[in-house]
Amino acid sequence: MTAALLDTLRHTVGAAHVLTEGDLTAWEQDWRRRERGRALAVVRPASTAEVAAVVRACAAAGTPIVPQGGNTGLSVGSTPDGSGTQIVLSLARMNRVRAIDADNLTLTVEAGCILQAVQQAAAQANLLFPLSLAAEGSCTIGGNVATNAGGTQVVRYGNARELCLGLEAVTAQGEVWDGLSGLRKDNTGYDLRNLLIGSEGTLAIITAATMKLFPQPVARLTAWAAVPSMQAAVQLLGLAHRHLGAGLTGFEVMNQFALSLVARHLPQLRVPFAGLDGAPWCVLLENSDSESEEHARQRFEHLMELAFEDGCVLDAVVAESIAQARELWHVRESIPLAQAEEGLNIKHDISVAASRIPDFVAHTDQLLAREVPGARLVTFGHLGDGNLHYNVQAPEGGDAAAFLREQEPRVNELVYGSVAQHGGSFSAEHGVGRLKAGTLAHYKSPVALGMMRAVKQALDPQGLLNPGCVLLK
Amino acid sequence: MTAALLDTLRHTVGAAHVLTEGDLTAWEQDWRRRERGRALAVVRPASTAEVAAVVRACAAAGTPIVPQGGNTGLSVGSTPDGSGTQIVLSLARMNRVRAIDADNLTLTVEAGCILQAVQQAAAQANLLFPLSLAAEGSCTIGGNVATNAGGTQVVRYGNARELCLGLEAVTAQGEVWDGLSGLRKDNTGYDLRNLLIGSEGTLAIITAATMKLFPQPVARLTAWAAVPSMQAAVQLLGLAHRHLGAGLTGFEVMNQFALSLVARHLPQLRVPFAGLDGAPWCVLLENSDSESEEHARQRFEHLMELAFEDGCVLDAVVAESIAQARELWHVRESIPLAQAEEGLNIKHDISVAASRIPDFVAHTDQLLAREVPGARLVTFGHLGDGNLHYNVQAPEGGDAAAFLREQEPRVNELVYGSVAQHGGSFSAEHGVGRLKAGTLAHYKSPVALGMMRAVKQALDPQGLLNPGCVLLK
Repeated sequence: MTAALLDTLRHTVGAAHVLTEGDLTAWEQDWRRRERGRALAVVRPASTAEVAAVVRACAAAGTPIVPQGGNTGLSVGSTPDGSGTQIVLSLARMNRVRAIDADNLTLTVEAGCILQAVQQAAAQANLLFPLSLAAEGSCTIGGNVATNAGGTQVVRYGNARELCLGLEAVTAQGEVWDGLSGLRKDNTGYDLRNLLIGSEGTLAIITAATMKLFPQPVARLTAWAAVPSMQAAVQLLGLAHRHLGAGLTGFEVMNQFALSLVARHLPQLRVPFAGLDGAPWCVLLENSDSESEEHARQRFEHLMELAFEDGCVLDAVVAESIAQARELWHVRESIPLAQAEEGLNIKHDISVAASRIPDFVAHTDQLLAREVPGARLVTFGHLGDGNLHYNVQAPEGGDAAAFLREQEPRVNELVYGSVAQHGGSFSAEHGVGRLKAGTLAHYKSPVALGMMRAVKQALDPQGLLNPGCVLLK
Repeated sequence: MTAALLDTLRHTVGAAHVLTEGDLTAWEQDWRRRERGRALAVVRPASTAEVAAVVRACAAAGTPIVPQGGNTGLSVGSTPDGSGTQIVLSLARMNRVRAIDADNLTLTVEAGCILQAVQQAAAQANLLFPLSLAAEGSCTIGGNVATNAGGTQVVRYGNARELCLGLEAVTAQGEVWDGLSGLRKDNTGYDLRNLLIGSEGTLAIITAATMKLFPQPVARLTAWAAVPSMQAAVQLLGLAHRHLGAGLTGFEVMNQFALSLVARHLPQLRVPFAGLDGAPWCVLLENSDSESEEHARQRFEHLMELAFEDGCVLDAVVAESIAQARELWHVRESIPLAQAEEGLNIKHDISVAASRIPDFVAHTDQLLAREVPGARLVTFGHLGDGNLHYNVQAPEGGDAAAFLREQEPRVNELVYGSVAQHGGSFSAEHGVGRLKAGTLAHYKSPVALGMMRAVKQALDPQGLLNPGCVLLK
């Protein structure tokens, strides 16, 4: 049975693209090395027709399929389980930019195209593809869309969902849905595109997407501000929305402990306002301007003056050069690395309405201080979207592995409980995968879960697409 | 059976809110008076709990439900069929603004709230709710969301879909899904919100929504330009995107025949560049600025200079006052009225990628000139979104009613065929309703239709929610 399926797959995509031997770690282990699965085979189709044929063969054999892009997900959503019965369907060979339509400000690209290559293709046409995140050198656009990736530019341009105008996908029955479209308005029936976006390969396999492009900004300026409280950071966000309008393309917040880890483990980086008295938080702002650098600077300075007057900023610096701007972003983006250097930690990717973030942070900080003494909080993230990486570092000098073993479930319970209490989400941008399928089952309302299960059953009645991901088996 | 159901409904919402007698035209006839149905009863619940109880009673009785907001839809999606067996569930009494969260830039509002009241509630908080369309004085936000309404500000702010962050809805089983949320990032399972948005009451009944707000622009300027061709209009759109960035909040195109009808039937309006030689099209642009009126004007003038140099604008005027700006918008918005005054006509609401609009228009104009001699084309719409109201006026002086009777199916076939050939949509912003359910069945791919039917069957297995709307029975 299995041998017959493998034969069919070899016939479909070529024997060289059905991997069963050798080291398959790259496909079988998730990015954060939390789980190592075992694949029946890794299958690498080169076209949509081949993907469809692979799915039909698997459907006939009753073999589950785990779609995989760059395998950089943080929630264990693109690797097989340990049973050895699932195939990994890698989209990596489908990596062409099919078309750029400059007048329509769109680009159509295959699922396996690396995000950075999409950005570069847009830049070569003197346009901007704004999706930007840490894994952009390895993640693929198909994975970005399938998981509705977020990143640093969401405050202006939205998530992958908001950037996607159309999809091509292969259904669980192995049919091709051609929903590619550069249309900005199309009210002809149910929104299948958004249903597939963020469904993490459990409803269909995305093979290509049409994405929005934007004019390149003429200037991009970055500022760094020390703020007296989280409330002040939210106030600054409001001012920035009002005075920069859509120029506000980035708004990141970091606590001083996160910055101290950067200073400790990456001493070559200059961290502005490190340890400044009375400034528990720093904010990184980005202003993109369609006019001129001078204009951008003038708008930024105007904003900062107002913020000083309002008392929501204690000190601030606007980058004088692109190099300086890059360095500020580099500090922000080095937090995860600095955290890793400091040792094991528990990661969260939560969101709460921006207005409730100060309450959420005060409440949860207090809760953890009481319930998990010594835990050190590395809080940073995309405040412009109400999205915090509210991470918990093991106590200084203790046995971090033991801490994680003993405390992780309890810490998650406390944090997610507080998130729920504040009307938030336990997964803002990293998705559910298999890692958080249990969390989803716990925190989603029975009505929502019922609708999700009905949709899954309707589109994938055999349950072969990425089983156990998003919804528990 | 029916009597028992009506008793239950009277018990649920109060006898005064179950209408069976008297003139029910307002609920039974669609906005454009294309169809007059007959309702078993018009039921007007006052709360989400009442909506749920009504749905449970109807589900138990096997009685179909047609949800209705302002009943201003253009595709016959909110009125009952002629059988007298369907109830109309009016959301009109659920019209409260539940909350405004200025720091989070969101507002939560019940489905029956009139769009204009939503705009006003936002304005009172010194914020902008940008959804704006002709029926805003009568349509409701629930209907806007259920049909994914578009309008004049989509080029900057998106459709109702892009403005909606969360929903509350009653399922076909009469359960309440509380998906209200002001979160800008939330990747916890399937996107039920977007599945319901645009589903026109066929998958669940939307009872409330959380919508995005924006800072009020400091200045809003309007310009009017005469352009030598549709290609030039698309070129001007590109320039406007590049030089106004997100300041570009409106981009409307109108052909000279549409403007001549305004001049003929509303002689009190001044139509700029009416009949200007070599200028078959005019464009209305709106520029919203977060800085100052002076800055907005300067940006607009800079844009127009570039456009003159590029040859894509022949003449242009920037409104000198708010009154003048309103008058320009008024000309644009009077086209449908002027059309009605001219006589019966065939309306289309199509979209095509902006880059393909010039080809589409040239091709379809030629096709109609050949196949339907004498037909007069009233072409106008939201070019910024690739959305044209490509309307066909009966030949001058002929019998318009006879023309429609004889030619409407053929004209639709020609126009929609051309739309399909150009990769476009036969319904850009008006939805499908019962009017275009047959068109959907014809033009959508079997794969897409199959997925839609599977989703419908999964969420509404009895087929009681707005039957015959979107999908044929």
